[in-house]
Amino acid sequence: MTGPFNARLRAEVERKQSHLCLGLDLDPARPSRLHDNTLDSLIDASFAIVEETWDQVWGYKLNFAFFERFGSQGYTWLENLASEIGQRALVIGDAKRGDIGNTARNYAHAIFQHLNLDAATVNPYMGQDAVEPFLADPAHGAFVLCLTSNPGAEDFQRYGDDRPLFLEVAAWAQNLNDADNLGLVVGATHPSDLENVRLAAPGLPLLIPGIGAQGGSLEAAMAASTPEAPNIINVSRGILYAGEGALDDILAAIDKYNRDINQFA
Amino acid sequence: MTGPFNARLRAEVERKQSHLCLGLDLDPARPSRLHDNTLDSLIDASFAIVEETWDQVWGYKLNFAFFERFGSQGYTWLENLASEIGQRALVIGDAKRGDIGNTARNYAHAIFQHLNLDAATVNPYMGQDAVEPFLADPAHGAFVLCLTSNPGAEDFQRYGDDRPLFLEVAAWAQNLNDADNLGLVVGATHPSDLENVRLAAPGLPLLIPGIGAQGGSLEAAMAASTPEAPNIINVSRGILYAGEGALDDILAAIDKYNRDINQFA
Repeated sequence: MTGPFNARLRAEVERKQSHLCLGLDLDPARPSRLHDNTLDSLIDASFAIVEETWDQVWGYKLNFAFFERFGSQGYTWLENLASEIGQRALVIGDAKRGDIGNTARNYAHAIFQHLNLDAATVNPYMGQDAVEPFLADPAHGAFVLCLTSNPGAEDFQRYGDDRPLFLEVAAWAQNLNDADNLGLVVGATHPSDLENVRLAAPGLPLLIPGIGAQGGSLEAAMAASTPEAPNIINVSRGILYAGEGALDDILAAIDKYNRDINQFA
Repeated sequence: MTGPFNARLRAEVERKQSHLCLGLDLDPARPSRLHDNTLDSLIDASFAIVEETWDQVWGYKLNFAFFERFGSQGYTWLENLASEIGQRALVIGDAKRGDIGNTARNYAHAIFQHLNLDAATVNPYMGQDAVEPFLADPAHGAFVLCLTSNPGAEDFQRYGDDRPLFLEVAAWAQNLNDADNLGLVVGATHPSDLENVRLAAPGLPLLIPGIGAQGGSLEAAMAASTPEAPNIINVSRGILYAGEGALDDILAAIDKYNRDINQFA
């Protein structure tokens, strides 16, 4: 797949007829049919899941915390898993990085060059020079945190008297999208705000967590999707731990999510 | 050293008569007398610097991006360097993490349990549940980003009509400091704002970057320091690459910074 990241995102939605991103957040504290609490079993489970699911989902999201908790062994797992997925599906590095320019360049190098992932999640608090290194190569993209799915989203993301901060971030990101490789993270747990984000940033695809375990609205999430800026729905625990967490359970959950999403697409 | 992190911070300022934190940001693109552009030479340089400097500085700051750029090999370096420093000096994991509660717990596990670092830098954008896992064990601390030293600090950190966001963050953090283990990151590049942060958060030590390469004011940084909440001055490139970057150059730069800082302490 060539072209800027958002073009690749759109093409992959078409090719796979899926807006579903599978978050590979395997939890050692939650043994399933595929793994126990050992690192080896988690690694095996992640490879088995990718092997069976890569042609059923839009792509994958790798939450770095679930790898870093195992230190360098976890980072090696991250490298091997990224390599295993390869070109079979797009991969978002959910690292939520954000730091001053020269530091952000090193984080972007780690995620895009070293791990060869397609996109990264980025925190906007430190502003433009913290985000720009993730936009420098149009083939790679950044999803900037806008309105997140957790309770703490209420603490600062709505700050401001006239326009809440998250809409300021959305409008700012829209203006920064010169290379067609920027998107936003907006939780499905805020159904009435999804439309406002879409109005503030009409050209940006939204990466939407909060469906599944967190109980957000799929209908609202897809109502804010457009052909030019299709939204991507991330589900992690709601798929990995469906039923008994066996591969059949996972495939059935993916099939159901794809059908539910496509009914609103 | 026992007790909550901020008590350990204060005790270490007394014991070492130093407010100086050395950021070990070794840059392969900037060869010096101690290293070239190879990972092995960077590893050797970092160990040599710690060996010579640990009793001359308050502590160290490890910027994770400079390790992660080398992937799992870099993470192994981070593990070994943390272990090498051990109990000889306090270590801040400058990771700027921030994510929803269950993810943040994994990041805190990586930094505090796996790497056994003393404190971490944390991004406030995602609110309370993103920060709390870093405060759960009083012996470990968190420095929450408040007003950063980079140009992008102007983009969102001053947002709001009445009170700028960074002061809202400061007051919020002050209220969250039940266990005496919370601090704030405030750049020395904003001298007139340091006093306002101090007023909004009288009990929190400030971790202050922006001295040295970024040209901030040491006098303003130390004017906002108090015995109860002593400020920590971080210098990275200004020390590591002083002169020709030999150990003697580094030791001379540390000595000069300590004297300059203590003159205002």
